[in-house]
Amino acid sequence: MKAQIITIGDELLSGQTINGNAAYIGEKLTALSINVVKTSTVGDDEQAIFNEFQHALENFDLVIATGGLGPTNDDVTRTAIIKFFDTDLIESEDVLNDIKLFFEKRSRELTETNRKQALVPRIAKVIRNNRGTAPGTWIERKGKIFISLPGVPIEMIGMMESFVIPSLQEKLMTTEKKLYSLSLMTTGIPESNLFDRLGDLDALLGSSKIAFLPNQFGVKIKLSIVEKDEHTASEVLSHVEQKIRALIGRYIYGKNGELIESVAARLLIERGLKIAVAESCTGGLISSRLTNISGSSAYFERALITYSNGAKVELLHVNEDLIMKYGAVSLEVARLMAEGVRAVSGTDIGLAVTGIMGPQGGTIQKPVGLVYIGICDDKICTAKEFRFGDDRLLNKDRASQAALEMLRRHLLGIPNEE
Amino acid sequence: MKAQIITIGDELLSGQTINGNAAYIGEKLTALSINVVKTSTVGDDEQAIFNEFQHALENFDLVIATGGLGPTNDDVTRTAIIKFFDTDLIESEDVLNDIKLFFEKRSRELTETNRKQALVPRIAKVIRNNRGTAPGTWIERKGKIFISLPGVPIEMIGMMESFVIPSLQEKLMTTEKKLYSLSLMTTGIPESNLFDRLGDLDALLGSSKIAFLPNQFGVKIKLSIVEKDEHTASEVLSHVEQKIRALIGRYIYGKNGELIESVAARLLIERGLKIAVAESCTGGLISSRLTNISGSSAYFERALITYSNGAKVELLHVNEDLIMKYGAVSLEVARLMAEGVRAVSGTDIGLAVTGIMGPQGGTIQKPVGLVYIGICDDKICTAKEFRFGDDRLLNKDRASQAALEMLRRHLLGIPNEE
Repeated sequence: MKAQIITIGDELLSGQTINGNAAYIGEKLTALSINVVKTSTVGDDEQAIFNEFQHALENFDLVIATGGLGPTNDDVTRTAIIKFFDTDLIESEDVLNDIKLFFEKRSRELTETNRKQALVPRIAKVIRNNRGTAPGTWIERKGKIFISLPGVPIEMIGMMESFVIPSLQEKLMTTEKKLYSLSLMTTGIPESNLFDRLGDLDALLGSSKIAFLPNQFGVKIKLSIVEKDEHTASEVLSHVEQKIRALIGRYIYGKNGELIESVAARLLIERGLKIAVAESCTGGLISSRLTNISGSSAYFERALITYSNGAKVELLHVNEDLIMKYGAVSLEVARLMAEGVRAVSGTDIGLAVTGIMGPQGGTIQKPVGLVYIGICDDKICTAKEFRFGDDRLLNKDRASQAALEMLRRHLLGIPNEE
Repeated sequence: MKAQIITIGDELLSGQTINGNAAYIGEKLTALSINVVKTSTVGDDEQAIFNEFQHALENFDLVIATGGLGPTNDDVTRTAIIKFFDTDLIESEDVLNDIKLFFEKRSRELTETNRKQALVPRIAKVIRNNRGTAPGTWIERKGKIFISLPGVPIEMIGMMESFVIPSLQEKLMTTEKKLYSLSLMTTGIPESNLFDRLGDLDALLGSSKIAFLPNQFGVKIKLSIVEKDEHTASEVLSHVEQKIRALIGRYIYGKNGELIESVAARLLIERGLKIAVAESCTGGLISSRLTNISGSSAYFERALITYSNGAKVELLHVNEDLIMKYGAVSLEVARLMAEGVRAVSGTDIGLAVTGIMGPQGGTIQKPVGLVYIGICDDKICTAKEFRFGDDRLLNKDRASQAALEMLRRHLLGIPNEE
């Protein structure tokens, strides 16, 4: 089953509202193995909406439209629907009762404008709305399904959950092929490098497909396959996963959108270890990410954000002469900070970062983007150099990701040198 | 000038990524008074991309496409472009040099796959990318403009700012009516409350329009007006701004998307003051935000992320008996933490937060979302209670925002009680 999602509203075109509805519906349809081939947005313009309906129903089996169903004059979707399907409006008793109840509950008076919302296209099945006053509609014609929902996210979501998703589930034949997918989260290796290391993709993938989705935290490798049988699909995907792991396993920190801080947290909890963090250039970001996880007090003891040299000396007991000798941004100081924060906090592990985030403060020897990360436990104490880019906030993200990856590798005994 | 935005990527259709690119470009084009009539999303499918280009260029004057320009096999936009415009690829020396420099800076080896990114459509003007390796293209044909940009938001935004927006501005006639707008950033007051305090909107606004855009950091009040003359537009908007400031001025921390951490940083620098931060429940987020600002070492001395009670006693010298008496999450402990971090750091100001972020850890007396924030200087030492929601990450955002707002008010001498 192929689908198009149409979102309607001037505020979406002008970027005043980010299109969360399209993402929500796309996710839900994909989970039902419906192939979302296209999404589009048009403004509050009857002709544009009409044209979009036409184009969508010519090309796809399922069309879901949101928006333009409100009571005011800029809401023209309903008019476009009755023109397109060549039908007229009738008052729905159910909807009128829903609207009356809605206003009673809020002790508000029902106006003529509100009452008009009970008018629905004659040929439609009505989708009731228990979070607002605009009903949705479900129209089937020539084997195709057209659904119209309000644009207010909370109302749209309520109607998707209570009616649209269950109804689509019923419609879908269980013998149809479905889309199955699996993602591997990597970090510390660029997209092009991953691509090269995977070698001959056709041989690797068989009947499955691959996509590389990069951002500043790493590259998500998405594997997908269209199959009738779930068991077969998961066998094929896990076979490909194993082959990929054999080639680039050490760069894979998690699966299916997992965050590296969750992985690190789980490993710390499993091992019963406590960590303390010393941050300079990342300014608290690593600690904030480690404490984003519920229950973080089990493994997170404290962090010392030692921005000034004085704080590094005073709080972490880093030798001032060594800061003078090597510079605050150096392999040596990163290691001493990790050692220091571990010692003063009495934790199992110390993790430390120092670097130059930019845009100012770089030199030829020590350019913007240069970062050193140190990690120590009772046996090992090591540090590593990284070179990131020019953007301060992206550098903070990248440095925090690299630090959490060093922690993950440390906990798993994977060498941090490549 | 009528425009369509085309965003390309399977991950957008399946809702794995929310379409921020379409919103960003829509906002920028709207600000240039370009009429964004449609946006659409198609997957990583050459034929679908080709069809979308065709439909868009038949109907609109300007088409901007993002995505599908990466180095790997799932990136097919470039192929669709050369087929659609019936041209071929040539190696761009400029782009190749950019790519070489990009790799040199990161001490990474340039592979054959990377080198391919220097291939651009023969008929295109190249848009250089200084944040990544995929160049953009600008093609003019039959009086229409076609622009292709990478899908990675930071790269796309960089190229929009440095090249696309200025070039479009040049193309546009200056005599047309344009949209002018101005935003006031508020925090600590709900949308409905702002709405009520502003009273009769028609009387307040005159020929301008207003929109309230809320998120967890506060409510952005956006004023806009369509005018020929820039001077008239800015006079009307600043007159409305003054009237709004008279009604709700103390809640306004900045203008036009400004962040509260930038405002706080500017005030600290102007006053020559240094700050130290003690964080419990926010886990480093306040410090991370304060150090997101370039040049933060001028005012940010250190932060102590005292997650455990032991760390509060040991590092901040909070009296252990008082923690036992009042609880770690209390007005008293917030004040003592602020006092403590200021004293041990020798800074002008101490700022401290303690609270329960959830989802676990709440009690009837101290529910999830309860937060205390303390702030001290050499004269004043005060703390305030806040009650946020159930979501851990949103609570961290809200608590950090409230702390920075207390700091802003403290620096400006605005009372923190309402």
